[in-house]
Amino acid sequence: MTIDFKQDILSPVATEFAAMDKLINEGISSKVALVMAVSKHVVEAGGKRMRPVMCLLAARACGLTNLDNAQKLAAIIEMLHTATLVHDDVVDESGLRRGRPTANATWNNQTAVLVGDFLISRAFDLLVDLNDMVLLKDFSTGTCEIAEGEVLQLQAQHQPDTDEATYLDIIHGKTSRLFELATEGAAILAGTDQYRVPLRKYAGHFGNAFQIIDDILDYTSDAETLGKNIGDDLMEGKPTLPLIAALQNTTGADHQLIRKSITTGGTDDLARVIEIVHQSGALDYCRKRAIEETQASLAALQHLPDSIYRQSLTQLAQLALNRIQ
Amino acid sequence: MTIDFKQDILSPVATEFAAMDKLINEGISSKVALVMAVSKHVVEAGGKRMRPVMCLLAARACGLTNLDNAQKLAAIIEMLHTATLVHDDVVDESGLRRGRPTANATWNNQTAVLVGDFLISRAFDLLVDLNDMVLLKDFSTGTCEIAEGEVLQLQAQHQPDTDEATYLDIIHGKTSRLFELATEGAAILAGTDQYRVPLRKYAGHFGNAFQIIDDILDYTSDAETLGKNIGDDLMEGKPTLPLIAALQNTTGADHQLIRKSITTGGTDDLARVIEIVHQSGALDYCRKRAIEETQASLAALQHLPDSIYRQSLTQLAQLALNRIQ
Repeated sequence: MTIDFKQDILSPVATEFAAMDKLINEGISSKVALVMAVSKHVVEAGGKRMRPVMCLLAARACGLTNLDNAQKLAAIIEMLHTATLVHDDVVDESGLRRGRPTANATWNNQTAVLVGDFLISRAFDLLVDLNDMVLLKDFSTGTCEIAEGEVLQLQAQHQPDTDEATYLDIIHGKTSRLFELATEGAAILAGTDQYRVPLRKYAGHFGNAFQIIDDILDYTSDAETLGKNIGDDLMEGKPTLPLIAALQNTTGADHQLIRKSITTGGTDDLARVIEIVHQSGALDYCRKRAIEETQASLAALQHLPDSIYRQSLTQLAQLALNRIQ
Repeated sequence: MTIDFKQDILSPVATEFAAMDKLINEGISSKVALVMAVSKHVVEAGGKRMRPVMCLLAARACGLTNLDNAQKLAAIIEMLHTATLVHDDVVDESGLRRGRPTANATWNNQTAVLVGDFLISRAFDLLVDLNDMVLLKDFSTGTCEIAEGEVLQLQAQHQPDTDEATYLDIIHGKTSRLFELATEGAAILAGTDQYRVPLRKYAGHFGNAFQIIDDILDYTSDAETLGKNIGDDLMEGKPTLPLIAALQNTTGADHQLIRKSITTGGTDDLARVIEIVHQSGALDYCRKRAIEETQASLAALQHLPDSIYRQSLTQLAQLALNRIQ
């Protein structure tokens, strides 16, 4: 099934999306010219804006009719996402993101760290204006967990004993938690408490599937389709699911080679590691896990009433899965 | 007049200070071991904890008797301060702070950036628990201004045309604003709206004096007393008040040398720049400005009723000034 992001997912909230985009540009306005310039650069380098779209769709799926606050929340979500990308690029010493020079490469690490801090602070400032303590608590706890997930990922780097449970903790923090805030936040705004858990589960499992798929692509894709190089994770000694599964499925020399590659990082053995990941059934396992997470995600959505918005959320999960099928 | 920090300033709130210190350690607890280790390292490397002490004294000066929430607020202030120090050390590529290895030096930039993010998020999380929208708005706006001040400082680096007004904007953001949050926040908690502006003015002017004094010491002190090297600011091409004043007071070759030193950075001409800063009357001007800011700070305090706590706040401002007298 061919799914088109703009046609099938974005279109039911296209008007709100445009308003949200304007709010982001207002949100990053600052009397300091350098803050504006860098924020504008990184916000414009954004991708599909999947998180705010999800937030807007979730708000409509909950039956919310006045989307003024949901648009603000969606803009806040994208600003938080942008802030983490800016800091991630400093952390990873990345020069390019989606084919464009990163903030740290265009300016320097100093500017990137501080503008990232500004974006986090401004996102909270806008959130406070929504005047909802439940929402604030959800976000303040959530952003702690996001930072913890990122540090956990650093802690696991070069650690071949990292297991799937720890991997799931990492991707929950670094990826799924912000998706959860986007959808559960919409349910909070809508005042539909009964949809908070289903929407949180939808986003959490979607995020897990999304990240597993991303990690699969690091061993199967090429720079053109992914915007990053094959073997990036191996280079940094990141024990992602393809390697964790490969360790489960191998013994002897192959097993030792994977362990060594995680421990040392680098791509000296990239070709052989890719072979092992493919031949050991590790990628099949990863695909199975991505499908399971997507199914759990879609099952949670069933607790919401049917609507074109719920259909778009369904298609978003399927679109993500299509990247590996 | 000899003023002792512990004896004259800390002692009226010594019990609350100890409780606050415990709250910081609880606040930085995390299920991620690396988050805990780094947070503990940077919190323990803290100095006098001037900001939380100011917060506790301000709360008492407003007549607050139950300091449970003020202790929490003081801990939050110190966590925010610690977060900015951690990020500043990444930005400045510092290896030492107060004679101890920095987080970026002990671990790496990645860890320091992400643990700084965690500390900001956790500080907001604890702030949300205080359940006060006025306080939240003050802090969310304030932290934006702090980040903007830091970026403004970067923007002014190597810019010899930076004037005193811009310098004041920079130090307000990077230094005074957090002092303001510490004292005005205490007034908000105490429910004494009439003391918000006086305490904000006290802290704002105190912060300005404190930073001007710090910038003077960069041209007069030595590593032993300051914990940093003379000429650090010149090295980085920072147009601080001693250089701005020196440009005002000189013409010809001396003027050009200062301009060039700001533009290029580095310490090739350090000895001559120090001579010019001393002989041109620039340092006298800086001292005069530090005294004026201190006087404005103390004048604002007069709007609060006299108490041992107000006396300690007075002595704190005088103690800062003693560093250059």
